[in-house]
Amino acid sequence: MSTIRVAVLGATGMVGQRFVQLLQGHPWFELAALTGSERSAGRTYGESCRWVLDSDMPAHLRDMPVRGSEDPLDDVPLIFSALPSSAAGPIEERLAAAGHIVCSNASNHRMQPDVPLLIPEVNPEHLGLIETQRKRRGWSGAIVTNPNCTITPLTMALHPLHNAFGISKVLVVSMQALSGAGYPGVPSYDAGDNVIPFIGGEEPKVESEPQKILGVLNNEEVTPAGFLTSAHCNRVPVLEGHLECISIALERQAGMEELIDVMRHFRGLPQELNLPSAPPQPVIVRDEPDRPQTRRDRDAGKGMATVVGRVRHCPLLVYKFVALAHNTIRGAAGGSLLNAELMVAQGIVQA
Amino acid sequence: MSTIRVAVLGATGMVGQRFVQLLQGHPWFELAALTGSERSAGRTYGESCRWVLDSDMPAHLRDMPVRGSEDPLDDVPLIFSALPSSAAGPIEERLAAAGHIVCSNASNHRMQPDVPLLIPEVNPEHLGLIETQRKRRGWSGAIVTNPNCTITPLTMALHPLHNAFGISKVLVVSMQALSGAGYPGVPSYDAGDNVIPFIGGEEPKVESEPQKILGVLNNEEVTPAGFLTSAHCNRVPVLEGHLECISIALERQAGMEELIDVMRHFRGLPQELNLPSAPPQPVIVRDEPDRPQTRRDRDAGKGMATVVGRVRHCPLLVYKFVALAHNTIRGAAGGSLLNAELMVAQGIVQA
Amino acid sequence: MSTIRVAVLGATGMVGQRFVQLLQGHPWFELAALTGSERSAGRTYGESCRWVLDSDMPAHLRDMPVRGSEDPLDDVPLIFSALPSSAAGPIEERLAAAGHIVCSNASNHRMQPDVPLLIPEVNPEHLGLIETQRKRRGWSGAIVTNPNCTITPLTMALHPLHNAFGISKVLVVSMQALSGAGYPGVPSYDAGDNVIPFIGGEEPKVESEPQKILGVLNNEEVTPAGFLTSAHCNRVPVLEGHLECISIALERQAGMEELIDVMRHFRGLPQELNLPSAPPQPVIVRDEPDRPQTRRDRDAGKGMATVVGRVRHCPLLVYKFVALAHNTIRGAAGGSLLNAELMVAQGIVQA
Amino acid sequence: MSTIRVAVLGATGMVGQRFVQLLQGHPWFELAALTGSERSAGRTYGESCRWVLDSDMPAHLRDMPVRGSEDPLDDVPLIFSALPSSAAGPIEERLAAAGHIVCSNASNHRMQPDVPLLIPEVNPEHLGLIETQRKRRGWSGAIVTNPNCTITPLTMALHPLHNAFGISKVLVVSMQALSGAGYPGVPSYDAGDNVIPFIGGEEPKVESEPQKILGVLNNEEVTPAGFLTSAHCNRVPVLEGHLECISIALERQAGMEELIDVMRHFRGLPQELNLPSAPPQPVIVRDEPDRPQTRRDRDAGKGMATVVGRVRHCPLLVYKFVALAHNTIRGAAGGSLLNAELMVAQGIVQA
Repeated sequence: MSTIRVAVLGATGMVGQRFVQLLQGHPWFELAALTGSERSAGRTYGESCRWVLDSDMPAHLRDMPVRGSEDPLDDVPLIFSALPSSAAGPIEERLAAAGHIVCSNASNHRMQPDVPLLIPEVNPEHLGLIETQRKRRGWSGAIVTNPNCTITPLTMALHPLHNAFGISKVLVVSMQALSGAGYPGVPSYDAGDNVIPFIGGEEPKVESEPQKILGVLNNEEVTPAGFLTSAHCNRVPVLEGHLECISIALERQAGMEELIDVMRHFRGLPQELNLPSAPPQPVIVRDEPDRPQTRRDRDAGKGMATVVGRVRHCPLLVYKFVALAHNTIRGAAGGSLLNAELMVAQGIVQA
Repeated sequence: MSTIRVAVLGATGMVGQRFVQLLQGHPWFELAALTGSERSAGRTYGESCRWVLDSDMPAHLRDMPVRGSEDPLDDVPLIFSALPSSAAGPIEERLAAAGHIVCSNASNHRMQPDVPLLIPEVNPEHLGLIETQRKRRGWSGAIVTNPNCTITPLTMALHPLHNAFGISKVLVVSMQALSGAGYPGVPSYDAGDNVIPFIGGEEPKVESEPQKILGVLNNEEVTPAGFLTSAHCNRVPVLEGHLECISIALERQAGMEELIDVMRHFRGLPQELNLPSAPPQPVIVRDEPDRPQTRRDRDAGKGMATVVGRVRHCPLLVYKFVALAHNTIRGAAGGSLLNAELMVAQGIVQA
Repeated sequence: MSTIRVAVLGATGMVGQRFVQLLQGHPWFELAALTGSERSAGRTYGESCRWVLDSDMPAHLRDMPVRGSEDPLDDVPLIFSALPSSAAGPIEERLAAAGHIVCSNASNHRMQPDVPLLIPEVNPEHLGLIETQRKRRGWSGAIVTNPNCTITPLTMALHPLHNAFGISKVLVVSMQALSGAGYPGVPSYDAGDNVIPFIGGEEPKVESEPQKILGVLNNEEVTPAGFLTSAHCNRVPVLEGHLECISIALERQAGMEELIDVMRHFRGLPQELNLPSAPPQPVIVRDEPDRPQTRRDRDAGKGMATVVGRVRHCPLLVYKFVALAHNTIRGAAGGSLLNAELMVAQGIVQA
Repeated sequence: MSTIRVAVLGATGMVGQRFVQLLQGHPWFELAALTGSERSAGRTYGESCRWVLDSDMPAHLRDMPVRGSEDPLDDVPLIFSALPSSAAGPIEERLAAAGHIVCSNASNHRMQPDVPLLIPEVNPEHLGLIETQRKRRGWSGAIVTNPNCTITPLTMALHPLHNAFGISKVLVVSMQALSGAGYPGVPSYDAGDNVIPFIGGEEPKVESEPQKILGVLNNEEVTPAGFLTSAHCNRVPVLEGHLECISIALERQAGMEELIDVMRHFRGLPQELNLPSAPPQPVIVRDEPDRPQTRRDRDAGKGMATVVGRVRHCPLLVYKFVALAHNTIRGAAGGSLLNAELMVAQGIVQA
């Protein structure tokens, strides 16, 4: 397989940098173009990007020019979008119309009926929406989205349970990392020694995206899963990793061991296809009483696994447990990257 | 009223220090004795106590001798116990038998049927159990307990709602401060950049103590309130203040404004009696979308108020909101102190 | 004495909020006007100010209109400036020309030869520069500045030593709080689990302002003190309080006890005059091996004291020690307020 | 080369765990034995060790028995000691007497005249002391130590400068990570939002160990380097990485560019020999104004490099700069491991 040229839109932000970092040394993809805001365009990536991740900016990208978001990307079939939702809408649409496959981390198109909201282990069949999308919109390319960073660990843990037992109710309380707000994001004077029990716009997403992801594709549309979700979203002073306390009710009875087994033995299409960014085990269930912990478990599976623990009975619903995933890897750039890898494996993206 | 002599048991620990701090300049109480472990006994408080609170150890206590826990406290009618539960049981019982009123922060006696588990704004009538306690045990003194630090803000917020509408279900997820584990408590290498989704022994307490507090005293016993509670308890990297995300179901219908009004206008007996440590408003409801915040709201009412915010509908139960209180003030030493003040006002403690 | 009407310029920022907080209930001053940027002007303080301090915005100010920075302040003799240095220059000059006494926290005029750079305990006689300033500039008002937040604890500790023994060399390494960068200031993703060993523009100030403050006023100018200073300035993840490791060489020999005594017994004019914001003891020397600590000592003297500890021999210079002060109280708004109180006491500001 | 069997003494502590982690997959060494305190001995490593590092305990070690510290280690030629200094002295001596090469991280033997205090890039020739040590003590094995974690980055940066220009004075202020205190180490209630300007016993080490390391071996002893050092040591709330502000005076004149070049181009024997744990570049000099930063640079060279930045003139001495190294990797277990690798390469340790 020859290498596929890819671009990163919004490459100077927090998620853009994660895309750049994860694409370094990728076996299938070659980073061929970066775009930035008006302020960045025309300068090099080294000049315009304040690199904030712990490893250094890849040296060979320092001199790569940053393009404007309106510049054509003709020779780049695959595009990763880390654009803010204020900008993503029309730019992504224009590129999809022009034949590009756009893997978007933005929220704009997630809930549109003809756009896949994709977690490759969970709903790979939703890629079938691309045909509908192209037909309805007259596009030769497509937009495929990944869910909000808080939804990824939640849905990853729910999926095998939903398959096996049917989920009927979900109550989730998240403790979300500072990096989820981007950069500069949360001022340190707000974050230090503090919990902020509110994240703008987050709870409605958590209460609706999982149902679409776990929904059933019939003909040309997804019938959302029927369970109710209630979410409280909190910002806590950790750098990376969203940890969630989840209570669930099930449609069918399940024993605790059975429940744990179903999560632990779950494998998805990415594992079967051995995609480059697929974690060997998508859901890791830990037995210790005090795990997962945000700092110690967020990098499991190179930041691509969901770590579950403390599975126990819930006096109110039926079971409760804790789930964790790395929000800017699995919950953002890495999730989008895995989406693209799946589309390559299925022939939707071609070099 | 002449001053009442008081002692603090376990005065060198985190909660013991809070008792000492809050008793400084108290209008009714005079700190007359301190006790410590074997290691501390016989030395001065200044020598044996590693003071960890932000204000300094009161200067006049530096030279006070620390007594052993078996030493008699004859001239001290009122005793505050900050003993660890591993030691509290027999010591507190011996003192109660000897005629002392013991206000205990330890968990040992909280759930015993003849021991009041008291929040003065919530269940002052449970002090009626003292008579039963004395009768059954043949004591001339008594043990009165305050609830676990996580239960205080929860129960304080639930009480006016339970009175008005009847609570039927509660799901609570706590984000608890490091100080809740005492000193030395949580190692900094565990706490930093981390959430630990487990606190040993905490969840069973949160799932049972509120029902006793909100229960009804009939004759000689408390019939616990009938609602079900489910708790997830987490340790987050903040110094003081337990913040809780709470979802509730009600027995009777209530409008959102009605619900808020009931909490906001709630006043209890301590407010009526104008007790020295009573916060003017026991439950403060904030309207901002992002409050209460742990650091910014934990000191409301000098650390004695419960701050509620984000009251909204819960898609799963009926309403959800956030509640916060200072865990080592209202949730421990300050709560115990208010219990004592109530007992003074009611003539149970006398100089 | 009737109350003096005062204004706060730049009232919506971090230091502006500290001014507002410290002026609440002030016995001499009445907050009569607030100014803000163009974006804030015309709205109320409650609408335009995102209050970030722990106590709430004073309730009676919520509805006070925020004025533009060009609006006249005719009836307000005393003005506190929390303007950023990008804006402070011409605005402060215009107000001084119009007859106002401007107590400025901005750096713009600090090093101008006819502007007092004032710490009331240290160089109250530098107020004599006001006469020169008025003569040279034709102003009826005046500008008086307080030093950078890092310089205050340094100079406060050096002053009694300089008087007694003559300072010849100073090496200072600061560990500065996040609040020193204002709000939003340092992004939390930069601050967490990190030390940033650089603060833009800070070291040159620390290497020159102390010499002016400790200089001698002769006729119409200050001859700066002759010692050399070297500074390394670091940002550490604490919320408030600048802690500094200081090594000094002296012109005359001094015993360690003598050195400590000179600092401990130092009292200045604000203490003598009993000014409302003066800490009883401007320099507190602690004897414990591990104090001052940032969190535990920053509020000493209501945030107006400098706390010194670990005084010991320096193998390289002569002595070394640690000094700490609250950077947004003593090092900013509180320092400026004390300057104003001194000017009231000396008749320079009148109602 | 066949694999060399090694043991880790004190394997359950923070530094012991780092040894275990770094030995995993080591090309030359095979972890054959673990020892622990009396409490741990006889149980498995999985049972007795509370693993606190972010990656998991290597799975194959969970069932390895933990030996007591008095147990013989006959078939293990190379021993890494992570013992606390309260225990290390006689145990290490006994093992060296019995023919083992002991690479010790403990402070006990560091300053003894016949024990190498080794940084392989700096003073590999000090291994010559082993002959003296064996002769004097009648041992067939030997003890070789690595310096305190604070001294490693300091000495690593000073060494090329000392060689080129002669160091005459050093003033260093450290900002040290929490992990440096071991586990449980610093209580989180002390660490949060705080700087503690004191680390017991640390400053005397920093003021004496570098002179031994940079000293000259003549015949049978090391003549320490003649420069004076003054140290202030601080604990700051970061998890890993000791950052130091260093001012130096030189014996010979040096231009700034020359100084930087000497550090940047420095390579030592481990780089020449291409030892497995040797960082490609022992001293990395960064040009950005705000680097090194603790979190972003501590992992440079897999935690084995020293990162220097902000090289500039010092108004008091001659130059000043910032240096950083990972304290539990380069400054402890990794440093000891590199010592062992050097001794293998030189034939001192044999399979």
